[in-house]
Amino acid sequence: MLANDFNDNVGQRSSPVRSLRTRLFKTRAYTEKLTEHLSAEDQTVQAMDDASPTKWHRAHTTWFFEEFVLEPHLKSYKRFNDRFHYCFNSYYEHVGPRHPRPLRGLLTRPSFEEVCKYRLHVDTGLVNLFNHYGLNLPQGISELIELGINHEQQHQELILTDILSLFASNPLRPLYNKDYFLGLEIDNRCEPEWLKLSTDIYKIGHAGNNFHYDNEGPEHAALIQSFKLCDRLVTNFEWLEFINDGAYKIPTLWLSDGWYTVRTLGWEAPGYWEMVDGSWYQMTLAGLCPVRMEAPVSHVSYFEAEAFARWAGKRLPTEYEWEVAARAYPHKLKQTYSHAWQWTSSSYSAYPGYKPKVGALGEYNGKFMCNQYVLRGASHATTSGHCRVTYRNFFYSKARWQFTGLRLAGDIK
Amino acid sequence: MLANDFNDNVGQRSSPVRSLRTRLFKTRAYTEKLTEHLSAEDQTVQAMDDASPTKWHRAHTTWFFEEFVLEPHLKSYKRFNDRFHYCFNSYYEHVGPRHPRPLRGLLTRPSFEEVCKYRLHVDTGLVNLFNHYGLNLPQGISELIELGINHEQQHQELILTDILSLFASNPLRPLYNKDYFLGLEIDNRCEPEWLKLSTDIYKIGHAGNNFHYDNEGPEHAALIQSFKLCDRLVTNFEWLEFINDGAYKIPTLWLSDGWYTVRTLGWEAPGYWEMVDGSWYQMTLAGLCPVRMEAPVSHVSYFEAEAFARWAGKRLPTEYEWEVAARAYPHKLKQTYSHAWQWTSSSYSAYPGYKPKVGALGEYNGKFMCNQYVLRGASHATTSGHCRVTYRNFFYSKARWQFTGLRLAGDIK
Amino acid sequence: MLANDFNDNVGQRSSPVRSLRTRLFKTRAYTEKLTEHLSAEDQTVQAMDDASPTKWHRAHTTWFFEEFVLEPHLKSYKRFNDRFHYCFNSYYEHVGPRHPRPLRGLLTRPSFEEVCKYRLHVDTGLVNLFNHYGLNLPQGISELIELGINHEQQHQELILTDILSLFASNPLRPLYNKDYFLGLEIDNRCEPEWLKLSTDIYKIGHAGNNFHYDNEGPEHAALIQSFKLCDRLVTNFEWLEFINDGAYKIPTLWLSDGWYTVRTLGWEAPGYWEMVDGSWYQMTLAGLCPVRMEAPVSHVSYFEAEAFARWAGKRLPTEYEWEVAARAYPHKLKQTYSHAWQWTSSSYSAYPGYKPKVGALGEYNGKFMCNQYVLRGASHATTSGHCRVTYRNFFYSKARWQFTGLRLAGDIK
Amino acid sequence: MLANDFNDNVGQRSSPVRSLRTRLFKTRAYTEKLTEHLSAEDQTVQAMDDASPTKWHRAHTTWFFEEFVLEPHLKSYKRFNDRFHYCFNSYYEHVGPRHPRPLRGLLTRPSFEEVCKYRLHVDTGLVNLFNHYGLNLPQGISELIELGINHEQQHQELILTDILSLFASNPLRPLYNKDYFLGLEIDNRCEPEWLKLSTDIYKIGHAGNNFHYDNEGPEHAALIQSFKLCDRLVTNFEWLEFINDGAYKIPTLWLSDGWYTVRTLGWEAPGYWEMVDGSWYQMTLAGLCPVRMEAPVSHVSYFEAEAFARWAGKRLPTEYEWEVAARAYPHKLKQTYSHAWQWTSSSYSAYPGYKPKVGALGEYNGKFMCNQYVLRGASHATTSGHCRVTYRNFFYSKARWQFTGLRLAGDIK
Repeated sequence: MLANDFNDNVGQRSSPVRSLRTRLFKTRAYTEKLTEHLSAEDQTVQAMDDASPTKWHRAHTTWFFEEFVLEPHLKSYKRFNDRFHYCFNSYYEHVGPRHPRPLRGLLTRPSFEEVCKYRLHVDTGLVNLFNHYGLNLPQGISELIELGINHEQQHQELILTDILSLFASNPLRPLYNKDYFLGLEIDNRCEPEWLKLSTDIYKIGHAGNNFHYDNEGPEHAALIQSFKLCDRLVTNFEWLEFINDGAYKIPTLWLSDGWYTVRTLGWEAPGYWEMVDGSWYQMTLAGLCPVRMEAPVSHVSYFEAEAFARWAGKRLPTEYEWEVAARAYPHKLKQTYSHAWQWTSSSYSAYPGYKPKVGALGEYNGKFMCNQYVLRGASHATTSGHCRVTYRNFFYSKARWQFTGLRLAGDIK
Repeated sequence: MLANDFNDNVGQRSSPVRSLRTRLFKTRAYTEKLTEHLSAEDQTVQAMDDASPTKWHRAHTTWFFEEFVLEPHLKSYKRFNDRFHYCFNSYYEHVGPRHPRPLRGLLTRPSFEEVCKYRLHVDTGLVNLFNHYGLNLPQGISELIELGINHEQQHQELILTDILSLFASNPLRPLYNKDYFLGLEIDNRCEPEWLKLSTDIYKIGHAGNNFHYDNEGPEHAALIQSFKLCDRLVTNFEWLEFINDGAYKIPTLWLSDGWYTVRTLGWEAPGYWEMVDGSWYQMTLAGLCPVRMEAPVSHVSYFEAEAFARWAGKRLPTEYEWEVAARAYPHKLKQTYSHAWQWTSSSYSAYPGYKPKVGALGEYNGKFMCNQYVLRGASHATTSGHCRVTYRNFFYSKARWQFTGLRLAGDIK
Repeated sequence: MLANDFNDNVGQRSSPVRSLRTRLFKTRAYTEKLTEHLSAEDQTVQAMDDASPTKWHRAHTTWFFEEFVLEPHLKSYKRFNDRFHYCFNSYYEHVGPRHPRPLRGLLTRPSFEEVCKYRLHVDTGLVNLFNHYGLNLPQGISELIELGINHEQQHQELILTDILSLFASNPLRPLYNKDYFLGLEIDNRCEPEWLKLSTDIYKIGHAGNNFHYDNEGPEHAALIQSFKLCDRLVTNFEWLEFINDGAYKIPTLWLSDGWYTVRTLGWEAPGYWEMVDGSWYQMTLAGLCPVRMEAPVSHVSYFEAEAFARWAGKRLPTEYEWEVAARAYPHKLKQTYSHAWQWTSSSYSAYPGYKPKVGALGEYNGKFMCNQYVLRGASHATTSGHCRVTYRNFFYSKARWQFTGLRLAGDIK
Repeated sequence: MLANDFNDNVGQRSSPVRSLRTRLFKTRAYTEKLTEHLSAEDQTVQAMDDASPTKWHRAHTTWFFEEFVLEPHLKSYKRFNDRFHYCFNSYYEHVGPRHPRPLRGLLTRPSFEEVCKYRLHVDTGLVNLFNHYGLNLPQGISELIELGINHEQQHQELILTDILSLFASNPLRPLYNKDYFLGLEIDNRCEPEWLKLSTDIYKIGHAGNNFHYDNEGPEHAALIQSFKLCDRLVTNFEWLEFINDGAYKIPTLWLSDGWYTVRTLGWEAPGYWEMVDGSWYQMTLAGLCPVRMEAPVSHVSYFEAEAFARWAGKRLPTEYEWEVAARAYPHKLKQTYSHAWQWTSSSYSAYPGYKPKVGALGEYNGKFMCNQYVLRGASHATTSGHCRVTYRNFFYSKARWQFTGLRLAGDIK
């Protein structure tokens, strides 16, 4: 969970509209702060199809407010540039064609300066919107702004994962921020503790009116067999034992698709690990550093997490198990939101009774419910205030460029 | 469910060993009967990576008995040819390297005649094994033979799906069997009936000692919300409405990965459909025939099934819902095993407490539990006796060469 | 140059029409003799896109006579099967669409037996044609038949190169003919002799009325600088020195495209070479045999031939140099037509004044005059009577499945 | 031929060293002038593997002087940054490994500012070198500097072709320079004149001591048949007739590889042409403009040029014919260096007696002599002073991003 310099408690004493407004502009400002040390060049390029350029993230989150908040709800608003709609729509089929994702890194225009102006233009529009409605801001608009805030927070994490993938591809191995250090005070050398839960019917999913994504609901009951969950994440030290045991060479430890991926992509260690003069180093946001053995492992794929659990004689938890344990042991379950997202064995799918919204925003989550796996918790790059026990993150089983680790589970006989 | 000429009730009056022996050789003979009209050439080629040649299926099912039954359990047995181990191992990493799957269709040697001799050699070995042990056949061997029978039955269906893919790729559109007709007496033009089940805890999975694959257990309880399930499969007529409504051109009807697949592969109709002089025809085992509108649709992918359900305002059932309904309404749920496997919305994964076997046979199911979707029921090509209410078939979400259709489900509010 | 059992001197005492007829049916019969030991399965499959199945070669050469001789010139002729036009047209855009080349190996139908009948049907048509016209066979038809004979002879060599590529891909390493041995009596261990020619204007290309392909003409004069040409081919022994000198690992020995190919395809030795227990073996038509060091190297690409010449401090000859030397030293230039086609440094292009024929047969050679390199001479697999000093064979620079070697050249200062 | 603002006649009155020095720094300055309006972002990205980023061009031409001039010949010189060797080596295998070409566009570091400093650092080094040697600059160093000048001039043209490919991929269709207009005063609507040459022995290639690339020599005699050459280039108007005649849909007009390319890449017009509201536009350095019908066609591949010539009943000239005619008719042969490079039918290969230099600079031309075709003349983007009658440019047969057109030739009977 990323330290966020902004003071977030002003809104609690004032009206919900004022609070919303404060949080909105803090979020907008925080994006700029996160990217202020990146040059125009750094912000333009993408190192792989899955990652997007910083500039694109900054423009896309801005377009989101333009498209879904200002255009429909503020008559006086004029679009900054009609072509931006094509450039910065991510995946919303309802609102028209768009620039192909793998080509986002070719957009040297609009320029960095233009995108700064675009952000300012939309921020001004948002100010005007608040002024126009005052404290009578309709609930529907308020919800859209809330969604826009959370959407931008998601992209704040992606800005970091994507710039890391760019810098890792650069032979000069540049750093994002030398003070950005992965889990400084962690000591996981001690034996983990296993938290136990017994067979029962548990509530799963988000209830109440606080903000949450549609995929976190509806709340529903599930019968869950007894299980145990490890109180901390798997460490780099433990992962090194896995490597040294030859695990990346032993097909029977892997899912069939996982083994294919390991061989095809030549994996021998987690993402961003490289051997330098006989020692393991890892490319991080602070540059190329020796692997810190006591820290949680990161940049492992679902395939690797799943194979590690098998090798360890354990298994990954289901997302239900994770959520139940996190509710039951809020203090004893460590590193829940602080280091790396935690792979679960649950394929990403709809909860019983799930209905996506009508229209473009219905595409936000629902259409991705296929062939991806759920991660729970949060990472050190997740923006403060963007963590929840019901939060469902999801990626393809071979993705490694996110801050992704694992927490082991097991059956109780 | 395929008509199987063999009389299967002999064993019921006699000992389990005699019964096993009878079923074994019936199964072996049935494979030969299924393929007797295919030339050596037809049996050698594969039309795509996923499909295997008939000759390979015949040899691989034979190798399975040689490798797992005869070699470890009959001292007098001599392997037919040591190189066959490399040629006909499918995916068992525990037992060594193997010929790559996409190259199976290049194996003009061993020849058709050699493979016939190989089958005979192993059949003789199996006769010797039964003679050697008599009625005292150890339980472990008996279970391996039972697995081999079921394994060969699975390949009997694959022989049919794979030869269809080969013949469909041939400009002469040859037929497998002119009498092989898809669902002759079906009339699905009447309105479907919806079978309802209420919220409760249900038993899921296989219990008892009858043969079943390890992935069907362990039996366990699950809390299932109320739902309804359609008593029949979706028909070609209904699918044509979906096509004519432009569904293959409307991105918002599809999962994100599904829409990518539709565009990339240029899908406009189910697999094997082709437009001839303004009418839809379908390549079948009986050759190229007009699409029979009242019959259940087949050769649709998970992506298409899922999109159809959305278009129809319904959804796919989970595999649990399917199983619960099939148990609750054994007579009212129609076309359960008779026409096409039925896609469910469940990603293929382990049941709670699942433990794969140790060794090579542990690879039978477990290592495929990723990125595939479960199908329930059976198809007209499934060998008689190979259907169960707990049976879990699975394929990737874009697979269309199997006999795969769908049955709609819905929530009850 | 392949030993051809047929006696070819009958025609010399009789009329040209009788001679043509004799050669035609000898050629047709020789194709069958070449393939008589290959099973229907062997004849059906192709191991790579460039190679075609034996059955396809047999049908395509037959279609050539049907399409260009019988259909236009024998009224009573009825096509054997109208769909064969689509199946067995190779690349003639003028006469319509055709089955894609990489899918030829999927044509299990028409069957082996059907193709035998097809050959017989067309042979009968050709007999009828000769009977119909008698000794008055028009010159135009006679020329088409002559082209058909030469066309079928080309495919006779391809049948051998293509079956070798199939058998080499088979883990059982089957053999085509155990007596088929590569250059039995060759001894190239002695030092080569260099044949010299001085700067002059030379005639290049085919003159006169004997059969030749259009690409061999028109005859024209060319000014050629003095040069020397080696009297024998490069041997396997010499190639092994090239390998042992690390040549496959040294980028500066290679053309840029060649080095890319070496790295991408992982080449470390000529095609079909494999290391068995520390010794080099080579897959041949006689099966897997130890590399015969004194024999000419074969199965090397243009890239390899060009790199070898650079490594040896020599160069490849131009096709003009080759032709001039072969005319000047018919007896001193050895292994001209007996072992392997010889790469030249000449890109395949039109001679000055070249005009392809109008219509489909104009596609025979002209449209391939781009990005391929000329080979001169002939190989041990070339049908007897199919060699000429003006013959221009051509393949892409990375092709290795043909019987291709090299002969060195050098400048004279 | 690009207008070059710099006055180039100073050196003629002074020593060759002074002249070299003047031309060197003019060339260096001209690169900066060409790129001064491009932002850091524009300079960082590549739109396709074949094209390089502006920043990379600027750094690579600088590295060329550092690597081949300063490092070996100026003891006091210190490399700017040791890692730049890896980043900015283009293809010189002799001097070590290098950053892969398709990843040049990911190099956001070194930054634009760093590259400016790098250029300054090397320019300073070059000043020091001149000061160190004074008028006694050794011939060897002088030749290396001359090569470096010409090398940088080549990259000046590539900067323009590559930035055009980037801007053409941008949905905003930005322009490089609004005053940059393609062939403003051209009027090719009149009938072309055919220049004739008779059969003779002609001199080909560069003689004398003036700068030229090694591939332009050695000078040698060639016997050339009589031919005619068109005095002007093919126009957009003529190309439109080719399009409107359906040429892009008629397979028999094309080389086999060309037709494959047309279908695979979906070509329907020259590169950068697009239909807007029923009219043809073309993306140019001045932005998206209506196609100027009377101007020479540009951005056509070898495949298209060759097909056009066939369609027109003519042919492409050989490079020898082009050179002979350009020498014979220096005034009557129009548009020789002013608009577009002109495809010839000659595959790029070594002249008789060609020997590449020893060492890295021997890689400059020789290793590309395979599967490319020679273009003669120059384009409007070629730097002034970089044109010669013996100049041999070369590209692959499907390349279209260069300024490439054609001039027709024909036989004289």
